[in-house]
Amino acid sequence: MKKGVMRPGHVQIRVLDMDEALKHYTDLLGLIETDRDDHGRVYLKAWTEVDKFSVVLRPADEPGMDFMAFKVVDEASLQQLEKDLADHGVEVEQVPEGELKDCGRRVRFNAPSGHTFELYADKKYTGKWGITEVNPEAWPRGLDGMKAVRFDHCLLYGPELAATYDLFVNVLGFYLAEQVLDGDGTRIAQFLTLSTKAHDIAFIHHEEKGKFHHASFYLETWEDVLRAADLISMTDTSIDIGPTRHGLTHGKTIYFFDPSGNRNEVFCGGDYNYPDHKPVTWQAEQLGKAIFYHDRVLNERFLTVLT
Amino acid sequence: MKKGVMRPGHVQIRVLDMDEALKHYTDLLGLIETDRDDHGRVYLKAWTEVDKFSVVLRPADEPGMDFMAFKVVDEASLQQLEKDLADHGVEVEQVPEGELKDCGRRVRFNAPSGHTFELYADKKYTGKWGITEVNPEAWPRGLDGMKAVRFDHCLLYGPELAATYDLFVNVLGFYLAEQVLDGDGTRIAQFLTLSTKAHDIAFIHHEEKGKFHHASFYLETWEDVLRAADLISMTDTSIDIGPTRHGLTHGKTIYFFDPSGNRNEVFCGGDYNYPDHKPVTWQAEQLGKAIFYHDRVLNERFLTVLT
Amino acid sequence: MKKGVMRPGHVQIRVLDMDEALKHYTDLLGLIETDRDDHGRVYLKAWTEVDKFSVVLRPADEPGMDFMAFKVVDEASLQQLEKDLADHGVEVEQVPEGELKDCGRRVRFNAPSGHTFELYADKKYTGKWGITEVNPEAWPRGLDGMKAVRFDHCLLYGPELAATYDLFVNVLGFYLAEQVLDGDGTRIAQFLTLSTKAHDIAFIHHEEKGKFHHASFYLETWEDVLRAADLISMTDTSIDIGPTRHGLTHGKTIYFFDPSGNRNEVFCGGDYNYPDHKPVTWQAEQLGKAIFYHDRVLNERFLTVLT
Amino acid sequence: MKKGVMRPGHVQIRVLDMDEALKHYTDLLGLIETDRDDHGRVYLKAWTEVDKFSVVLRPADEPGMDFMAFKVVDEASLQQLEKDLADHGVEVEQVPEGELKDCGRRVRFNAPSGHTFELYADKKYTGKWGITEVNPEAWPRGLDGMKAVRFDHCLLYGPELAATYDLFVNVLGFYLAEQVLDGDGTRIAQFLTLSTKAHDIAFIHHEEKGKFHHASFYLETWEDVLRAADLISMTDTSIDIGPTRHGLTHGKTIYFFDPSGNRNEVFCGGDYNYPDHKPVTWQAEQLGKAIFYHDRVLNERFLTVLT
Repeated sequence: MKKGVMRPGHVQIRVLDMDEALKHYTDLLGLIETDRDDHGRVYLKAWTEVDKFSVVLRPADEPGMDFMAFKVVDEASLQQLEKDLADHGVEVEQVPEGELKDCGRRVRFNAPSGHTFELYADKKYTGKWGITEVNPEAWPRGLDGMKAVRFDHCLLYGPELAATYDLFVNVLGFYLAEQVLDGDGTRIAQFLTLSTKAHDIAFIHHEEKGKFHHASFYLETWEDVLRAADLISMTDTSIDIGPTRHGLTHGKTIYFFDPSGNRNEVFCGGDYNYPDHKPVTWQAEQLGKAIFYHDRVLNERFLTVLT
Repeated sequence: MKKGVMRPGHVQIRVLDMDEALKHYTDLLGLIETDRDDHGRVYLKAWTEVDKFSVVLRPADEPGMDFMAFKVVDEASLQQLEKDLADHGVEVEQVPEGELKDCGRRVRFNAPSGHTFELYADKKYTGKWGITEVNPEAWPRGLDGMKAVRFDHCLLYGPELAATYDLFVNVLGFYLAEQVLDGDGTRIAQFLTLSTKAHDIAFIHHEEKGKFHHASFYLETWEDVLRAADLISMTDTSIDIGPTRHGLTHGKTIYFFDPSGNRNEVFCGGDYNYPDHKPVTWQAEQLGKAIFYHDRVLNERFLTVLT
Repeated sequence: MKKGVMRPGHVQIRVLDMDEALKHYTDLLGLIETDRDDHGRVYLKAWTEVDKFSVVLRPADEPGMDFMAFKVVDEASLQQLEKDLADHGVEVEQVPEGELKDCGRRVRFNAPSGHTFELYADKKYTGKWGITEVNPEAWPRGLDGMKAVRFDHCLLYGPELAATYDLFVNVLGFYLAEQVLDGDGTRIAQFLTLSTKAHDIAFIHHEEKGKFHHASFYLETWEDVLRAADLISMTDTSIDIGPTRHGLTHGKTIYFFDPSGNRNEVFCGGDYNYPDHKPVTWQAEQLGKAIFYHDRVLNERFLTVLT
Repeated sequence: MKKGVMRPGHVQIRVLDMDEALKHYTDLLGLIETDRDDHGRVYLKAWTEVDKFSVVLRPADEPGMDFMAFKVVDEASLQQLEKDLADHGVEVEQVPEGELKDCGRRVRFNAPSGHTFELYADKKYTGKWGITEVNPEAWPRGLDGMKAVRFDHCLLYGPELAATYDLFVNVLGFYLAEQVLDGDGTRIAQFLTLSTKAHDIAFIHHEEKGKFHHASFYLETWEDVLRAADLISMTDTSIDIGPTRHGLTHGKTIYFFDPSGNRNEVFCGGDYNYPDHKPVTWQAEQLGKAIFYHDRVLNERFLTVLT
């Protein structure tokens, strides 16, 4: 957080049928609906998140990610980051306060990878869901489905990883936790973090710009990953792969699809990092093991990404 | 155990290279070597087993299962079973005491499925490995790899499931815990048990006789299944599928291969059964989900079986 | 099950306030109410049980256990057991079909320990709760609280352990899985089982007859024991001890009290047994570790038992 | 980490008998010995730590903590912190490079609570133990005992919590994650963190200065906490309390003592925090539940602290 960027704050995802999507994100993932707006968007959060929302579903004709936003520690930091982005030659768009309900002004920009990101400093503080602020219980009763703990990160596909790295590391204050290098030493995957998490955003090289691989939600335990897998089956939800472990980050994971075709991950565990840690390197010839530690090969579905 | 047949007692497996096989079954699975004999066979047991061995590895030119044996509660029951087998028209072969070291006489016969089975009442009682008989600790320190708890069951492929059912249920005292029925109501898979376990032996229909699918070992927890998966990857062992859950029995599982190509399973959990429980039925059109509850399709490798 | 006695079938527990008791056994333990009768009794079951009920709550002025019943495999076995009890000099009381709703006739008798037991062969088969008989899911959604898997066993205190052993082992077909011996070799605790379970009934020596220590319910995992502990705290339920492990059986456990003062246990794991296993012995001087493996001392509350 | 202070870097603990102590910290906790020095001190680390050591054992006549150190992101930050400490009126002692082997210069000072702390920017980078830097496996085989993941935090007792808070928050850049307030709103416990961890250092009010409650080590899972508890019993190690959960931080925990009487904790889980999270408050009248969430009372041993 050396530039004041704290964590992933929200992601806006396009869905084809809002009722089906809501059922998926609430009954199955266990997110909580917190609001709706005039654009037909629905706002959701996971129970441990203290701000009002972290997932925004937007009705649309094709699935994918509109943008992902990071919360900044305060307005002063946001102004400095705005200036630093401009100095770096990044064009910045102002999104006014209230465009997302109960969210302060957002600073929007495109990364060289072709994805849209936002920074913001203010969002309505609602506290954790279902437990009190004083003498809080360990967890709330009444959570549904997978009981997702928090929106954790996104994995995105696109070109220009080096320029994207430069932007995230040198302007926004992320640091490199893990990477995949090809035989020439070119970075073909980069896992970037703001704190001790294994990653807050990850990029894998792809020829086309702006591809969306998945939005990921944190669970507490490997047993929760099993329960998630069971629920995927019980609800006849389309599974990608898992339960399994990643080589990269060593997180324990399962991938599946929302009814619109957006890929979700729920996962637990994963390595911790500090800025003085040398980045972990995986060699491209070990990419299968790097992605799926147990199978050691990529399944075909993993390679599909959304526009 | 209504006819005195208690549990799976041992399985003899053919291996191509004994050193590699031993490394697999001890360092990776965590079995303990307990003896060797003049035929080059090596005897192994899992730590909770009270008898001297449960797995016998035999050097051979092709992999597969020689036979599987069940322990009978006493000599009187063994004699009655011998008589019942003969009355049922089953040809019985006498294997003398000591043919397997420290094992009493064995009664050997073939099932209509084409597999060889044995019954025996006596084997040297060595007690659990690594803990005392008085005031025993919860588990022994010094176990390797997956720390397999016990040899649990085998899954076999072959024809004549109805006749095999008749033999196991009506002569040997097993009962049917689970089954898969095709559209005509024909049983194409049968999971048979002697106690409250989900299965002590299972058969899936196959045109050819005497096929071996896997020998299975019990683990304590889903976290142990994860550790097993990690170890499979760390030791570059060939994986089949998992970690996942079965629909049939609902056990949590992973399949992999020994260096000779014999499939092993390690698993935990699974439903309990009593003789008054109605058998659980899966429909053949749900076979994918019945076998692999999360993926809901059979992987190709699952279908391969050994002679 | 060598005499046809299969498993614990039900326990009738006295409660002071039925509403409070029901809230405890359904919202907290996760049992399901299945019926009520004219005596004000309420019938409950755990979700994996195939018969209609396993716990009967009876409104009364003081807490404790009225009786515990075992299910027998069929009417023929019940008649034989009745005869064997009579031959053993045990007075038998006939409880007619329907005295407990949807339960067949029961054979009632007192053990030398001062407790009342019953045998029965028939109870309405309702199947597992919340899942289908064909292609069943792994578990039902909608379970409450601790999601108890089954009524598992009782621990009772009383005198005459040797005579009680004789009755249970030689007449009813139980076998001894574990025991505590004092310095003179006298058995001061006996854990008896019918199948591969660690115990179906247990007795600890006590000067007074007919004391009730606890009724125990099975959970799936150590994580479920943690959830149980959390729920005990969230509902301000009186805790005895745990989460911890027993030395005897090595099960992982937590003890707590219903609103009437009856002690409950929920636990998972525990050693498996077969009739050919030598009983596990704990020495009385290690009783602390035998009961509570981690603390290695008995807490005071453990020693309290109900009339 | 807003002032560049990253994490707990090491703790120096006094032990009465080095051989016994080493056996405890390596065989039981699973730390790895990395060096010794001329003062008879022994250096240890946990396997995921990238620097050479995190625990220093010093032979002494009475147990307790000599000092605890935090690693700073770089020398420039260290110099700024030194200046800020001086500006805050804190006397600073210079400990030269090499006083602890392979550790750079340390800046030492006393907190108002009576404890000694250090800051340093450099320590020999040895990487994680037992796994490679490129294509690393999920965990190393060959870890002993509890397989401690990292030295995580200390809990200290002393007076002057407000002044200590001022020092840690305003000078060193910690933020308050959790607190206990008495009826007057006075803070009697403060849990301070540098990143998203539940705490990097915690203080509880005590009349006497410089008391040591425990040094804490992170484990991966609740199942690891059970294994730790089992190992405590198997090695006849003195237990304090657990396995249980804390109310404060909601971590899952067990407390025990090294052979010299120093209290250790191993724990897993626990809430995550960000600087924009409101501190979690527990009321002093709920202190029992705040400390031990399941028992909801403090055990007597918890109250004992070392000089």
